[in-house]
Amino acid sequence: MSSGEPATKKSKTDALPEHLSGIPEETKKVLIEIDAVQNEIDGLNEKASEEILKVEQKYNLLRRPQYEKRCEMIKKIPNFWCTAFLNHPQLSSIIDESEEQALAHLSNIEVDEFDDIKSGFRLRFFFTPNEFFENEKIEKEYNLGDTPSTTGTTIRWKEGKNLGKQKGDTSSPLSFFEWLSENVDPAHDDIAEVIKDDMWPNPLQYYLLPEMEETGDDFEELIDDEEGLEEVDDEGGSEGEENDA
Amino acid sequence: MSSGEPATKKSKTDALPEHLSGIPEETKKVLIEIDAVQNEIDGLNEKASEEILKVEQKYNLLRRPQYEKRCEMIKKIPNFWCTAFLNHPQLSSIIDESEEQALAHLSNIEVDEFDDIKSGFRLRFFFTPNEFFENEKIEKEYNLGDTPSTTGTTIRWKEGKNLGKQKGDTSSPLSFFEWLSENVDPAHDDIAEVIKDDMWPNPLQYYLLPEMEETGDDFEELIDDEEGLEEVDDEGGSEGEENDA
Repeated sequence: MSSGEPATKKSKTDALPEHLSGIPEETKKVLIEIDAVQNEIDGLNEKASEEILKVEQKYNLLRRPQYEKRCEMIKKIPNFWCTAFLNHPQLSSIIDESEEQALAHLSNIEVDEFDDIKSGFRLRFFFTPNEFFENEKIEKEYNLGDTPSTTGTTIRWKEGKNLGKQKGDTSSPLSFFEWLSENVDPAHDDIAEVIKDDMWPNPLQYYLLPEMEETGDDFEELIDDEEGLEEVDDEGGSEGEENDA
Repeated sequence: MSSGEPATKKSKTDALPEHLSGIPEETKKVLIEIDAVQNEIDGLNEKASEEILKVEQKYNLLRRPQYEKRCEMIKKIPNFWCTAFLNHPQLSSIIDESEEQALAHLSNIEVDEFDDIKSGFRLRFFFTPNEFFENEKIEKEYNLGDTPSTTGTTIRWKEGKNLGKQKGDTSSPLSFFEWLSENVDPAHDDIAEVIKDDMWPNPLQYYLLPEMEETGDDFEELIDDEEGLEEVDDEGGSEGEENDA
């Protein structure tokens, strides 16, 4: 408490917003009571969020070995990620034809939520040696704390092979490698969201699709019609990201 | 198993989608393995959803007495709900001037999620005797199961006082009492969502706002600027509804 100020404690009923100063004393008292109950409710909400976060953390750990196993298996399938990306309704639409050759070298993806989940996540893309860039790993990190930011690996393009955006052309949406080489506002990075929340939870369903025409309507049908591997469904999403924990 | 068919069991590798039938046997085997791991991941996702659901159920029960206490207190504040609705950025925009008089009779609201949360919820609106309709309670129930549907109390309007929509004018958005008297497709009932997920978790914050201009940008500022009751924040949302449990 600053010593310069009088030590009288403001009564709670004085703490009402100015435009409500004219209301009856009795009403004021009830509002204070409602506020106290509201604080209890908010406290319960916070506790619920914490418990849900713990469940998510537990399952993030439990899922990790399965995801690692899956990555190792996927590496054995030629062109797996490239095919899955090209079959994905949103991702396919941002892959320029000129990029397909480079994308064919994508051998592995990793998606890691930070341990506390809410503060961010990391995407890692692994590439086999190729004519486009030197990097074997390109990483994008999304920090979703108080001042959200994205950081990413600088791509070391080989001469004349830069697929990243020539700055200035901001009118068209980013193509895949433009996205990969730029740091987009994390609050509006739909591509990161789609990879994290849709592709990563179940890439097999996209790999297995016959090459898609880009009509949203047919998409669900295609999946339903697939007489494919058993229980390849389109609902494998991780539920973690949808809690405002 | 139908007795007319041969009893040979299809091998798993035969179960691939047709367009993949030409791929090497080795690749097929790996795809089957990936599918098995994917099923394990899906199983873990399901377990996570179930555990999260249990947390939500627990806190729904824990919050109930606080919500009931809050309702009783709110009843003592003249015009509480009407004021809160008129101060809410989205709800205020659907309240016709002609409806404000009727809305002033809204004395109590109850929001109940079904016990299993995912199958739906119920909104109840209680009114004091008024010149517009006979009902003391108007209920809307949202069933979100396999075939989502809404059911609601039929409003018994007094003569010449019908605030519900004259069918045919479907171009403009529903006003509040039009919404209250119609059964909207539950998947697109934004009004229900806003009441359930924004107004209900913390109506006090809206009651306390000075009358709003409808500009989204000023809204957050207004809340932040309020030198109001302590800890009246805008994040009191229930986290339950955001899990794809």
